[in-house]
Amino acid sequence: MAMYVASRRLSGGSAVGVLRYAACTFWRPYSTSFREERDTFGPILVPSDKLWGAQTQRSLQNFDIGGERERMPEPIIRAFGVLKKCAAKVNMEYGLDPAIGKAIMQAAQEVAEGKLNDHFPLVVWQTGSGTQSNMNANEVIANRAAEILGHKRGEKFVHPNDHVNRSQSSNDTFPTVMHIAAATEVNSRLIPNLKQLHTSLNSKSIEFKDIVKIGRTHTQDATPLTLGQEFSGYSTQVKYGIDRVLCTLPRIYQLAQGGTAVGTGLNTKKGFDVKIAAAVADETNLPFVTAENKFEALAAHDAFVESSGALNTIAASLMKIGNDIRLLGSGPRCGLGELILPENEPGSSIMPGKVNPTQCEALTMVCAQVMGNHVAITVGGSNGHFELNVFKPMIANALLHSVRLLGDASASFEKNCVRGIQANRERISKLLHESLMLVTSLNPKIGYDNAAAVAKKAHKEGSTLKEAALKLGVLTHEEFDTLVVPEKMLGPSD
Amino acid sequence: MAMYVASRRLSGGSAVGVLRYAACTFWRPYSTSFREERDTFGPILVPSDKLWGAQTQRSLQNFDIGGERERMPEPIIRAFGVLKKCAAKVNMEYGLDPAIGKAIMQAAQEVAEGKLNDHFPLVVWQTGSGTQSNMNANEVIANRAAEILGHKRGEKFVHPNDHVNRSQSSNDTFPTVMHIAAATEVNSRLIPNLKQLHTSLNSKSIEFKDIVKIGRTHTQDATPLTLGQEFSGYSTQVKYGIDRVLCTLPRIYQLAQGGTAVGTGLNTKKGFDVKIAAAVADETNLPFVTAENKFEALAAHDAFVESSGALNTIAASLMKIGNDIRLLGSGPRCGLGELILPENEPGSSIMPGKVNPTQCEALTMVCAQVMGNHVAITVGGSNGHFELNVFKPMIANALLHSVRLLGDASASFEKNCVRGIQANRERISKLLHESLMLVTSLNPKIGYDNAAAVAKKAHKEGSTLKEAALKLGVLTHEEFDTLVVPEKMLGPSD
Amino acid sequence: MAMYVASRRLSGGSAVGVLRYAACTFWRPYSTSFREERDTFGPILVPSDKLWGAQTQRSLQNFDIGGERERMPEPIIRAFGVLKKCAAKVNMEYGLDPAIGKAIMQAAQEVAEGKLNDHFPLVVWQTGSGTQSNMNANEVIANRAAEILGHKRGEKFVHPNDHVNRSQSSNDTFPTVMHIAAATEVNSRLIPNLKQLHTSLNSKSIEFKDIVKIGRTHTQDATPLTLGQEFSGYSTQVKYGIDRVLCTLPRIYQLAQGGTAVGTGLNTKKGFDVKIAAAVADETNLPFVTAENKFEALAAHDAFVESSGALNTIAASLMKIGNDIRLLGSGPRCGLGELILPENEPGSSIMPGKVNPTQCEALTMVCAQVMGNHVAITVGGSNGHFELNVFKPMIANALLHSVRLLGDASASFEKNCVRGIQANRERISKLLHESLMLVTSLNPKIGYDNAAAVAKKAHKEGSTLKEAALKLGVLTHEEFDTLVVPEKMLGPSD
Amino acid sequence: MAMYVASRRLSGGSAVGVLRYAACTFWRPYSTSFREERDTFGPILVPSDKLWGAQTQRSLQNFDIGGERERMPEPIIRAFGVLKKCAAKVNMEYGLDPAIGKAIMQAAQEVAEGKLNDHFPLVVWQTGSGTQSNMNANEVIANRAAEILGHKRGEKFVHPNDHVNRSQSSNDTFPTVMHIAAATEVNSRLIPNLKQLHTSLNSKSIEFKDIVKIGRTHTQDATPLTLGQEFSGYSTQVKYGIDRVLCTLPRIYQLAQGGTAVGTGLNTKKGFDVKIAAAVADETNLPFVTAENKFEALAAHDAFVESSGALNTIAASLMKIGNDIRLLGSGPRCGLGELILPENEPGSSIMPGKVNPTQCEALTMVCAQVMGNHVAITVGGSNGHFELNVFKPMIANALLHSVRLLGDASASFEKNCVRGIQANRERISKLLHESLMLVTSLNPKIGYDNAAAVAKKAHKEGSTLKEAALKLGVLTHEEFDTLVVPEKMLGPSD
Repeated sequence: MAMYVASRRLSGGSAVGVLRYAACTFWRPYSTSFREERDTFGPILVPSDKLWGAQTQRSLQNFDIGGERERMPEPIIRAFGVLKKCAAKVNMEYGLDPAIGKAIMQAAQEVAEGKLNDHFPLVVWQTGSGTQSNMNANEVIANRAAEILGHKRGEKFVHPNDHVNRSQSSNDTFPTVMHIAAATEVNSRLIPNLKQLHTSLNSKSIEFKDIVKIGRTHTQDATPLTLGQEFSGYSTQVKYGIDRVLCTLPRIYQLAQGGTAVGTGLNTKKGFDVKIAAAVADETNLPFVTAENKFEALAAHDAFVESSGALNTIAASLMKIGNDIRLLGSGPRCGLGELILPENEPGSSIMPGKVNPTQCEALTMVCAQVMGNHVAITVGGSNGHFELNVFKPMIANALLHSVRLLGDASASFEKNCVRGIQANRERISKLLHESLMLVTSLNPKIGYDNAAAVAKKAHKEGSTLKEAALKLGVLTHEEFDTLVVPEKMLGPSD
Repeated sequence: MAMYVASRRLSGGSAVGVLRYAACTFWRPYSTSFREERDTFGPILVPSDKLWGAQTQRSLQNFDIGGERERMPEPIIRAFGVLKKCAAKVNMEYGLDPAIGKAIMQAAQEVAEGKLNDHFPLVVWQTGSGTQSNMNANEVIANRAAEILGHKRGEKFVHPNDHVNRSQSSNDTFPTVMHIAAATEVNSRLIPNLKQLHTSLNSKSIEFKDIVKIGRTHTQDATPLTLGQEFSGYSTQVKYGIDRVLCTLPRIYQLAQGGTAVGTGLNTKKGFDVKIAAAVADETNLPFVTAENKFEALAAHDAFVESSGALNTIAASLMKIGNDIRLLGSGPRCGLGELILPENEPGSSIMPGKVNPTQCEALTMVCAQVMGNHVAITVGGSNGHFELNVFKPMIANALLHSVRLLGDASASFEKNCVRGIQANRERISKLLHESLMLVTSLNPKIGYDNAAAVAKKAHKEGSTLKEAALKLGVLTHEEFDTLVVPEKMLGPSD
Repeated sequence: MAMYVASRRLSGGSAVGVLRYAACTFWRPYSTSFREERDTFGPILVPSDKLWGAQTQRSLQNFDIGGERERMPEPIIRAFGVLKKCAAKVNMEYGLDPAIGKAIMQAAQEVAEGKLNDHFPLVVWQTGSGTQSNMNANEVIANRAAEILGHKRGEKFVHPNDHVNRSQSSNDTFPTVMHIAAATEVNSRLIPNLKQLHTSLNSKSIEFKDIVKIGRTHTQDATPLTLGQEFSGYSTQVKYGIDRVLCTLPRIYQLAQGGTAVGTGLNTKKGFDVKIAAAVADETNLPFVTAENKFEALAAHDAFVESSGALNTIAASLMKIGNDIRLLGSGPRCGLGELILPENEPGSSIMPGKVNPTQCEALTMVCAQVMGNHVAITVGGSNGHFELNVFKPMIANALLHSVRLLGDASASFEKNCVRGIQANRERISKLLHESLMLVTSLNPKIGYDNAAAVAKKAHKEGSTLKEAALKLGVLTHEEFDTLVVPEKMLGPSD
Repeated sequence: MAMYVASRRLSGGSAVGVLRYAACTFWRPYSTSFREERDTFGPILVPSDKLWGAQTQRSLQNFDIGGERERMPEPIIRAFGVLKKCAAKVNMEYGLDPAIGKAIMQAAQEVAEGKLNDHFPLVVWQTGSGTQSNMNANEVIANRAAEILGHKRGEKFVHPNDHVNRSQSSNDTFPTVMHIAAATEVNSRLIPNLKQLHTSLNSKSIEFKDIVKIGRTHTQDATPLTLGQEFSGYSTQVKYGIDRVLCTLPRIYQLAQGGTAVGTGLNTKKGFDVKIAAAVADETNLPFVTAENKFEALAAHDAFVESSGALNTIAASLMKIGNDIRLLGSGPRCGLGELILPENEPGSSIMPGKVNPTQCEALTMVCAQVMGNHVAITVGGSNGHFELNVFKPMIANALLHSVRLLGDASASFEKNCVRGIQANRERISKLLHESLMLVTSLNPKIGYDNAAAVAKKAHKEGSTLKEAALKLGVLTHEEFDTLVVPEKMLGPSD
């Protein structure tokens, strides 16, 4: 797997041969030339066409876990761009050389825009503080900034630690980018898609407001309601889901930046924390503030456990909605058949009526994964020790995974399913009028006992209520038609 | 197991012998006489000294699952008392006979006060709508109200359905009592105990504000902080935990009552839903309102999934705090030994210093169970079908279990552990001054390279930093003492 | 709440007044007299009518968590009886005074039979090693054995530690009783009930073997199968479930006993571990052996995590079966209506056909709780530190809870539902013959294109396949009846 | 995002403009030319350089969920290659044209070798049956086989359904590839890496067998054991973990193939199921057999829930081991410091002794994710309906994710951490001899009371046991040294 096999530990002053090149299965196309980078462990070879440095390279070697799919999620990379840009800006206020500061800002902006994604090869399964990804960002930005200033990669004209990471520690940068990434993804991807889904469900609720149908409790026939009322339940679930996730954001908007190593803020200047939160807020147009307690912000990720709890609730809601819609759309002949779902792809060439509710399936699979990710986040969140929780990359990855999946699946479900749902009015009406529980409305006229007798007879004989009522002679054809009106059973009486 | 074995199904008009008496392992002392009660399935024997009726008795027979420990939790029973009292009150406004209404109110009050707990034998593992517990409440209150009015049990002078359950359905009463019970338990048990825990942790944070200690990240030695700062992280976690659960209450304060069978409100009068929510609010002094969408309120329990998510976050927080405190209190000789935890019971008669952090253990066990209950609630919450979620008793039970355990364990942990924690100042100071990372403060004076050399020498030789520095001749005894001052490493600089 | 309020810590040589009596809400009837018991913390008052001693009393005071429902589960108490009896027996071989040994055996036998349950008041939420319950067992057995020998309670003629706990430590006894209790409950409660459920499902599979019905995939109409084939899937799931839990027992049969404090076996004699495992095997008729590695057996509870994984799988199976049966039994008019489920209690007096699938509901609620308990066990199991996992009581309680619930619910579901399921042959046949996908069998005769045209026409016009085929003139009445035979679509062809 | 925006639904016989091209963000480099492919929905444009067909293209459009990272995992793609090769081979026995059959086998072999991975663009979040990935395989293999035979892509000289998918249905192929992929990954990736980890832990156990150290229970000082004994616990956990996952394989080795649409085997010939399982067994060298009940094999994925339960147990074990090792290696000055972990990358340039236990961190993060995936699999596994579970791709993906992560992380942890662990003998010895609990060994000589007095004095005064003993005059210097020998406290006595 490795292109260059080399000893894992560098012996003292040895020669070229000891330079290591990481086992890595996923660089395509493979680099064919290398440059030397250095850190306190000594020199190491890095692909010439990559901007990263020695510490990134070491992580690549030491954490061959999961492969390319497991790279640190892009929103984290972009958030590093945002943060490092803001840090340079604030650091210039505190004395960072403006030439270097501006170059860092420019390089960081490229990271924020996703232009340098290929230079972030590290996987989630690395050190639990995310230090290696912080260094990856520092190294890439330093090398890129140096190039902007006319210097070569690896020369450290712009220094990853002294310049790019100035006044920062992985211990505060990584939680900060976690919060920036989560807030950004929730606001840009999840909320809009949930809102669109809510709008669409709500439209259906209005569209279907006059379609009276059988209700079902315990999966059994019950009193009627309108299809619009049924959909209003779904749309309310989604509306509350949006509220739920919004409710958790105030704690996501708190940034750890300024806490540095253990939360004290050692090596920063007074006010740095407030200024950088303001800069991030300005850059992202989101109301970030500095965390009121930096010790909590480094040592725990309760805010992520909490937000994941909101996502978990949304998953429970969408699981319910997806299940209902596929069951109401079941058939075409042998199911409930009340809804006609859009046909998006061939079911079977033999069964023209066969529509598989594939969007419901994708959605409910996503919900199951979100519930699972929530447990992963909970376990990670509960396992911090002392001044630092070291399940950070896993927690960040699982939350961003859940946000992305829920956002994308909501959009897909809305666009490819909900929007096109039609009511099968004929079927709905047929079921409604076959139902035995409409007998309820006879109680005031013929009394409970007679009504029960009608229902029992109809059930036993497989007849309609009307047939049974007429046979029993308890009321006339006209009386029955006047009394048994499902449309009058849809709400409280005056 | 059964005292009277009888056929499971009642054949038509058969004689005395067919009366059934349920297999039930947990009535002590056993009843020795019985009366007959009836429902639409026919007659059934019920212990004479119990107030319940036929439907309760059938449930006892049909759901022999889990035994006595699994009875419907008491807060649900009490909430039924509250609800039935309020329903009678509102129903009197809508025409319920005041004599009967008042008797129901009196009987329901007894239920609300827990005086009739022994008459609620049903387990959680019954019908998923909680119908049988609703009928249990209706039957007990009807029989008790009848007695108050001078009538006999079983005669239905006060009718369980027509009077006690008037304008109600299990489908709206059970979610309503779930919400009443949850809100009551959260407000009366969980929040006060968390607040007390927060106060206590906060006091410790203030008490320990001047104790400088080594920080630990990745479980490894790091830069210093005060013990007060460390405890401020814990107290912030608890404070946010309180905020988190409070954030979810607005949706718990929404009551389903008035939705009846499928959410339409069939068989209620307009305004009933608003009035009953107001009555419950009045009775409980909690801001209950009628649910804005009754279909959602019956078909889903997202509000419980959400609140359980807040409890899950609190569990993650308390797991972290419990772990930290037991590790910081580990020893007495071979652990970290920075904290001295209260001794509440003998560890070993041989090892006088052995204090087992038993309160941390009870607390963290509770946290694990709360995380598990959260998954149970999520699974139940996601599995509703159509107009009714039928995992209601399980969801209610698991949430109330979590609330009770977290509340009680927080109180126990606060009272029997946190309050008595002492700092082992000598040990803390010893560790702090042995730490190599104080070398950081030499950087400005002797430069990074010399500082690193000092640290490496000390590490290699197992000496103090000062010894190493003096040996290397990079500074004097006085200079070292002036520069290496942990107390100056506790915050940002001016 | 407390009958006697007293200071939590005993001051040195003070007088009678300092004797404490625990706050405890659940002793009924309340004791009115007390005796003094002692441990290394000093004297403490204990209710005269109780056999427990000082350490039990202290735990009652210090762990007021959860109340009576949360007492250590009875199978654990009984297993302590078994273990202490066996320990006395083996200890006599190693020199324990036979008079004392025999009295211990007799007292322990009473515990094993559940006769002294009232003397085990401690809750699950205590020290994570279960030490306090081990001491509860030691104290009760010591006092009872002393009485048997004509001595008074509290005099320690038989000593809880020196005699009853001889050669033991809580660290090995508690894991041992966990394993004894789990193995006993699995073998006596879970397996027989699952076997009965399997037998019953299998009988139904045979009973229904000739009933051809529509298949459903994606909840949509698909090719036919027999109802017997459908039930064979369920019965296979249960059969494999039994296999799954049996597969995990070999590691449950490994007993920690003999490891004492940290797994070394300090203070035991060589061979003690093997002898005591043999004695327990003999006493329980289960193939217990001594654990091959005692360090693992104390420090981890992987065997419980594993067994809980098997229970979790069974829960997933039963959730699927319960869901299918309630959906296949949905109706009576507006659902699938293929199954007729037993009526066990009134649904509604108005709707005589309304049968709520309440047994399915109890079962699926149990499944959700078992899935939750599994997460609790996993979290507890993963959080051991060094030589001892201290989530023992929670792990034991959650596993035994799951075993009990699954066992009881399987029995209830089998007895009150599966056994009485009837096929609605008329409905099944009607749906089958309405299905469009029978068209598949025309392919060989009239070709795919013509067959598709038939199906599309029938779907569009809402007609039968036969009507469509005849209209299109692709085959005759007789040809259609010869070719479209669902009974020929039930397996591979020759 | 889309290169070509087009209407989502194809209107009847309309012109060129209606040809759709999917929105897809992750084809790089972008195709610049297209060909037309067709299915029963009509024509659709497909990138010329891709082998896939119409149904794959539609899925790309309809399921824009998660992006490139979420593609169906490679082991599933490869397993499709294996299966389709075997199907062609068996189908030739049943009459498939040998020329076509051989070409299919050759094309399928390329898929099995991963050579055509770029032609499998579909994500996990598609239809829950995996139909679209089955069609992706059929289309790619058909087009490739056609090319092998000198025909063009899209002409269907080799037909995806009639030839490649012959005698198969997505309903049996997808569960089959799930099982092939899982068995292959478990055997080739997980088991070998766990074995290597076991070997390495076992070697350490032997290497450390004479190092006596303090034991810790409840995180507190306890009686001594050897470091070798401690590591034997870890190695036993891993050994049992291997057993656990192996125990679940018999049910993974059961293949659904031959069940076709609903499990009946319609459209297959008798014996097909047995032959194809044999062919797969032959191809993979794994003992696959045909599932004894195909209905279970399609409708449920209990085997995956079960296997995931074994992985969950392994995760719990590795979480415990990872936690212990990082805590035992904590320091270097202010932690427990008993282990010296390998230094793999710079901690801090200032603190030369700072080694972050990064491999423990990656490992424990993996464990948390595996626990989460297990819940996702459980939820998906429990939610099947009728004849088909439609959470298949999610279940497959989550299980393969867990297998890969556990396998890779075990390898990384072994190679980069365990193998290089050194005991800090000096520190271990120091802690051991400071411990108060060695006093236990004085009991036989000076009696319990004197021993307790010694321990209490030492604890109170912070002195050694020896100092306290000598001060109290209970024994001599020589006596003490003879009696207090930790090496004699490591096992049962003779």
